[in-house]
Amino acid sequence: MGPMSSDHDVPGPPPVVPDPLVDPAPARRLCPAEAARTVVAEATTGALAMRVDDGHPWAALVRYGLLDDGRPVLCVSSLSAHGSALADDPRCSLLAWAETGGDPLAAGRVTLAGQAIAAAGDAGARAAHLAAAPEAAAYIDFGDFDLWVLAVERIRWVGGYGRMAWVEPGAYAAAEPDPTAPAARGAVAHLNADHADALLEVARALCGHPDATAAQCLSIDRYGLDLRIDTPRGIAAGRASFAQPVTAPDGLRAATVALVRAARAVG
Amino acid sequence: MGPMSSDHDVPGPPPVVPDPLVDPAPARRLCPAEAARTVVAEATTGALAMRVDDGHPWAALVRYGLLDDGRPVLCVSSLSAHGSALADDPRCSLLAWAETGGDPLAAGRVTLAGQAIAAAGDAGARAAHLAAAPEAAAYIDFGDFDLWVLAVERIRWVGGYGRMAWVEPGAYAAAEPDPTAPAARGAVAHLNADHADALLEVARALCGHPDATAAQCLSIDRYGLDLRIDTPRGIAAGRASFAQPVTAPDGLRAATVALVRAARAVG
Repeated sequence: MGPMSSDHDVPGPPPVVPDPLVDPAPARRLCPAEAARTVVAEATTGALAMRVDDGHPWAALVRYGLLDDGRPVLCVSSLSAHGSALADDPRCSLLAWAETGGDPLAAGRVTLAGQAIAAAGDAGARAAHLAAAPEAAAYIDFGDFDLWVLAVERIRWVGGYGRMAWVEPGAYAAAEPDPTAPAARGAVAHLNADHADALLEVARALCGHPDATAAQCLSIDRYGLDLRIDTPRGIAAGRASFAQPVTAPDGLRAATVALVRAARAVG
Repeated sequence: MGPMSSDHDVPGPPPVVPDPLVDPAPARRLCPAEAARTVVAEATTGALAMRVDDGHPWAALVRYGLLDDGRPVLCVSSLSAHGSALADDPRCSLLAWAETGGDPLAAGRVTLAGQAIAAAGDAGARAAHLAAAPEAAAYIDFGDFDLWVLAVERIRWVGGYGRMAWVEPGAYAAAEPDPTAPAARGAVAHLNADHADALLEVARALCGHPDATAAQCLSIDRYGLDLRIDTPRGIAAGRASFAQPVTAPDGLRAATVALVRAARAVG
């Protein structure tokens, strides 16, 4: 599946997206496996699709923890409407999504499809669930609650409109969640609220749009930031990459300051 | 399925929940059909469970609008990973959940299970989807996007831990979403931040716990408010009902003021 602009059967001319006037530096961004691991690691709440009765698909809200390789650990009451579904048929999918406060379909989400494996008595699975869902301590040892580990067979990542990929299970298991993700939403809000001028400098000097009139940060990750760039030629998307990947949430600030400094050195 | 406290196989004695010392007035609350309609009306984003390939359940993030009888209207690209699933097999479920900012499993959610009915060319369905998801105007007329109406056959409402019910489709279709729901989250935050003393008066005078030492508002709806009540005998749940159901979001304030006045008249 290609990008949205080439695949859709659009009724009329597509909107004009201006090309850069100057070639920007090659952009580095989270690969789909890293992006998928990041969405799954941040969410802790998801929707579980199961087969009930004669195979009707059923969706339920669940909390989940994660093993080190990204396999989710669920804790499901056998007394709930869907409680016996996994015991009757282990096929399931877990959907996790990013909370951005904006259009949810413009944000990331991941579907992990596979088989639920019973994990009763698995101390590692129990600890993983509790680490993500501490409120489960109130019921995880009730006799009617069962632990399940999702053996992941297929992974679909959607990064927003027109950004999507299948991720190989091995790549998913090996990828590192973005360590800066817990600070990203706050950083985006801060940049847009207090540093619009600096973002404009970055857009002009590093993203190839020297005629930009405004720039808004759409997202930030360990490798850089995505910008919406207003130009007299139309609205462009831009990406500016940090000199080095950031390794901790509190590193985003220094990396962004260095990026603005680099923009000023160029511009 | 009964309340959680009686059904679970609890390893040890259950926590002590103190009974009221004084019989409170009969509480009025949203019936499950109203509660389900309210969760579905507020969310506009949900998880759709479908069957893909050989029947594997698949969950995808979707936006939805609502017809007047509460049937959801979906807009799905046939180019997405799950795009052809509904055309191949119309069985599906839509999960919607309430955003409270707290433990998501303590909040309301609804699963609507049924059949997806193609709604191409249905102007009412199109308008319903756009009313809830205005950003869909950018793609709803693309040739690869299809409108689907979910014909609802089974409805499961979960109001939080131990509160759940099946809702008859006819009752769901006829029920009115709580008109105060858009203002509820803000009202709860305001009451807890600025009116803890008034809540304590309500808990003591109207909820049957004259020895209460603190009270926190957990939720509010057109019929009244739910309280967590600290007493020397343990933590109790209480409900105080408004004299009349509130008919608009801006009516919650006056109804709450009247409730506190009633508490003072008793106390």
